[in-house]
Amino acid sequence: MAAKFSIGLDYGTNSVRAIIVDLADGQEIASDVYEYPSGDHGILLDPKDPNLARQNPADYIQGCKTSVANAVKQASRNRDFSPDRVVGIGVDTTGSTPLPVDAKGRALALHSKFKKNLAAHAWLWKDHTSAEEAAEITAKASRTKENYLAKCGGTYSSEWFWSKILHCRRIAPDVFEAAAGWVELADFVPGFLTGNTAPETIRRGICAAGHKAMFHTDWGGLPKKSFLKRLDPELVKVAENYNSDTATSDQVAGHLIKEFAEPMGLPVGIPVAVGAFDAHHGAIGSGVKPGTLVKIIGTSTCDVTVWPADQPLADIPGLCGIVPGSVTPGMYGLEAGQSAVGDIFNWFVRNLAPSTIPSGRDPHVWLTEQADQLQPGESGLLALDWNNGNRTVLVDPYLTGLLVGQTLHTTAAEIYRALIEATAFGALTIINRFEEYGVQVKQVVNCGGIAEKNPMAMQIYADVCGRPMKVSRSAQTCALGAAIFGAVAGGGYSSVAAAQRKMTGTKDTVYRPRKKAKAVYAELYKLYHQLHDAFGVKGSGVAVDQVMKDLIAIRNRVRKG
Amino acid sequence: MAAKFSIGLDYGTNSVRAIIVDLADGQEIASDVYEYPSGDHGILLDPKDPNLARQNPADYIQGCKTSVANAVKQASRNRDFSPDRVVGIGVDTTGSTPLPVDAKGRALALHSKFKKNLAAHAWLWKDHTSAEEAAEITAKASRTKENYLAKCGGTYSSEWFWSKILHCRRIAPDVFEAAAGWVELADFVPGFLTGNTAPETIRRGICAAGHKAMFHTDWGGLPKKSFLKRLDPELVKVAENYNSDTATSDQVAGHLIKEFAEPMGLPVGIPVAVGAFDAHHGAIGSGVKPGTLVKIIGTSTCDVTVWPADQPLADIPGLCGIVPGSVTPGMYGLEAGQSAVGDIFNWFVRNLAPSTIPSGRDPHVWLTEQADQLQPGESGLLALDWNNGNRTVLVDPYLTGLLVGQTLHTTAAEIYRALIEATAFGALTIINRFEEYGVQVKQVVNCGGIAEKNPMAMQIYADVCGRPMKVSRSAQTCALGAAIFGAVAGGGYSSVAAAQRKMTGTKDTVYRPRKKAKAVYAELYKLYHQLHDAFGVKGSGVAVDQVMKDLIAIRNRVRKG
Repeated sequence: MAAKFSIGLDYGTNSVRAIIVDLADGQEIASDVYEYPSGDHGILLDPKDPNLARQNPADYIQGCKTSVANAVKQASRNRDFSPDRVVGIGVDTTGSTPLPVDAKGRALALHSKFKKNLAAHAWLWKDHTSAEEAAEITAKASRTKENYLAKCGGTYSSEWFWSKILHCRRIAPDVFEAAAGWVELADFVPGFLTGNTAPETIRRGICAAGHKAMFHTDWGGLPKKSFLKRLDPELVKVAENYNSDTATSDQVAGHLIKEFAEPMGLPVGIPVAVGAFDAHHGAIGSGVKPGTLVKIIGTSTCDVTVWPADQPLADIPGLCGIVPGSVTPGMYGLEAGQSAVGDIFNWFVRNLAPSTIPSGRDPHVWLTEQADQLQPGESGLLALDWNNGNRTVLVDPYLTGLLVGQTLHTTAAEIYRALIEATAFGALTIINRFEEYGVQVKQVVNCGGIAEKNPMAMQIYADVCGRPMKVSRSAQTCALGAAIFGAVAGGGYSSVAAAQRKMTGTKDTVYRPRKKAKAVYAELYKLYHQLHDAFGVKGSGVAVDQVMKDLIAIRNRVRKG
Repeated sequence: MAAKFSIGLDYGTNSVRAIIVDLADGQEIASDVYEYPSGDHGILLDPKDPNLARQNPADYIQGCKTSVANAVKQASRNRDFSPDRVVGIGVDTTGSTPLPVDAKGRALALHSKFKKNLAAHAWLWKDHTSAEEAAEITAKASRTKENYLAKCGGTYSSEWFWSKILHCRRIAPDVFEAAAGWVELADFVPGFLTGNTAPETIRRGICAAGHKAMFHTDWGGLPKKSFLKRLDPELVKVAENYNSDTATSDQVAGHLIKEFAEPMGLPVGIPVAVGAFDAHHGAIGSGVKPGTLVKIIGTSTCDVTVWPADQPLADIPGLCGIVPGSVTPGMYGLEAGQSAVGDIFNWFVRNLAPSTIPSGRDPHVWLTEQADQLQPGESGLLALDWNNGNRTVLVDPYLTGLLVGQTLHTTAAEIYRALIEATAFGALTIINRFEEYGVQVKQVVNCGGIAEKNPMAMQIYADVCGRPMKVSRSAQTCALGAAIFGAVAGGGYSSVAAAQRKMTGTKDTVYRPRKKAKAVYAELYKLYHQLHDAFGVKGSGVAVDQVMKDLIAIRNRVRKG
């Protein structure tokens, strides 16, 4: 039988990646990355407001054409490949990254009138300008009888769909007025690839809808108009121009149109799957299944697992979302996350990597080498991983980082390790929350650059979380997940699970918890949890008066061996 | 009338300085510094124990000979100067820096047997190995009817005389056994200069005795033997070989002997004043008087003021000491302090000064330039200044640093400023404690390198403390204070106050509180105080759940202007 291929398109924070994979084994035969040319590494910033992060929709369109064209060219060197053997295209993107569009579905930012208006651009996931609106939505939604927040952890985030739209309505009414509707990037891309872009007809994925727009079959789709009116009567227009026939990503959004097929070097008519968020497709590309938590560790993390839709499942407070079908059909998709992980290490290196690092050495590598020589607890340091707020379980962007235990002898490498440990404690907090509500986490499959390149970090994660840490075989699990959905939507496999069995796997190296380290980290985690509740939970009444003493006691014990 | 001169000897942490000043106006006509050659910048360290800090007594002896000889040579270029016009020598040193001596008063460390034994060396002020003993002394002393701790803030420090001796008794009984007695460095130097070194005859200053050895006339000198026995029966020996005829520094300890006069190029017989601690002499050299607080800002700070001995004065909890005559005759000397100030900034620069600082730039200067562009509150950061524990008002070496408020945008300069602000908040905590107990602080005179070289830091201190910050005219106030006592002991002035009027002053530049900055810092100080009590006061029950929110609110308000 002739080889078959699918294409995965993965829209990240700074670039879009196209990969072409072999349906037989998931092997990547071609790959290309297009860095967004606008702004600072693709992000439009406001020097006066560090919370603002927007993107230029033109980058999305050009990036897709260029990266797929290059990947197709590259694949063509493979004798088994030809463009007509591509059975489907899958798409994942960051999110919630909504953008305002006109009646035809064209991005407002592409109109000359709005070219320079940041509110008319795409509102990148990490835009936190809408914190006040998020608080207002949380307050008002919690008083509804539908309890719209039950499926998204009880707190609506400033990163999400309605917060951003409501903020736009208030700070840029001209943009809001001009928009016929708002579309998530995950839906926008399949939309323009297939020529179905109008906000009231575009095929919307259940993933973005369910996790970010409070869309749920329990209350018949989007929140009721009566609720939206209480936020702002004008929001009703957004809901009216919203195609509520949401779909899972194994479904076909449409077929590739000539405008894109030609520059890409592909035949017209290839099925394009319904889009979803990068983390969810990444989970699929990492082999997510019940009992397996997938951690996609990048600048932030998404922690994703699934649970059979026919088994009882409680609402879990603090989770980003519990949405049937959002990850894979027939399963609840459960999503949690940490607002910053790699971003914290990068922040440290960019701002505080000392000049004593030998010139020519990569600061991350050098600091990791030094930090790897430390025993758990030896530095006496403890940090909170909240430099970008806390996504799970506190769902609070108004939290910040904290470091305690520094002396006059504390080194940069000790702090670097403490920051890694902090993210591991944050990871354990998420695992514990899952298990407290009956969702077991037997193993963790990690993917992303840190999982690939930093064995020390993975060992710390294993020791802190007390579970084996595996690493996904593919280095591009999000794109691979997209390609898997492309394959399923295009008929290459009969089910997502069948495709996963052939196309995904983990590396041979498994990081297992070490007994001694696990014991020390269990003590440190208690202190982390004290800080977590004392600073993060209003009215918790948790005392911290022994934290410094306890850290010193652990430090002294570890140093004495 | 022919000019007259006095010599001030100032034993610092890393070096000894000799200055020669003109009695008429306090002007320094010669100065020389001898860097201690032993160990790491004069400090003997133990790589396994960061709390250990010792010094080689040989450095003290050689340093005195060399620096005075060089200063005398330098002064001789001045036509008014001749060695026979030196009326007296004054001495100040770090403290509590006790050292074990043999029956003749020779330092044990100079015996070949103990040359390599760190316990036989001088126990530098910042040695914190005796924390357990300090806690034990605090517990046992607080149960005595004499209340030995009433004059030193209610808590006995690991930095002090008896803690160190008791620790030596326990960890190095051979050294303790071989020691005929223990002598503070402040007494050791006048001792060897005048040939009166034996522990039972050496002239001891009330400053070291009263502030560090629980010596007080209220209970007839040192603590009673019954109390010392409860700590360890062997401690009685130390008390028995202790000349209890303590004296103020305007008194003569003895007269310069040939062994030192000759190499120094001075006549034999010059009066040498009773020694005292650097901070107390520094306060004198800065013009301390009732209502004036002198801050000697170096690696750590000492905060010194005086109060008329004939006026009522409460015991003030948390102060390092309240001792009649310790600073100047006829006054209570009141001493407080911060365990690390310059040391924190140096720690930051050594370990975390980023490689982005332009090469060739002094990191302190560069960071200060950047930090100076920030508004109070703008960074959203708040730190505790406890990297080396807390001396006043918590008297707890088992506390550590803390930084909160960091985001992904936090810069090194913002942290540097937050650390300076933290030390200013610590300074205000001390001032408030003085005033709560009736000791008014109308103005602050600062001295030391930071006061001289960092106008931004002084402005922050003024804004935070809400009081004018003056800077001492002399750059070497400790040595000047020693020279003032040399002058008084040698008969050049009839009183310390008379000498101060002629020989001290402040610079023209005065840093005055700015209204807007003062208001923001008042808000930040409330949050500092919450952290202070939450982490530093056992059972305080202070909540910190709004600290991050409040910092963000202040930050956002400041940024909006």
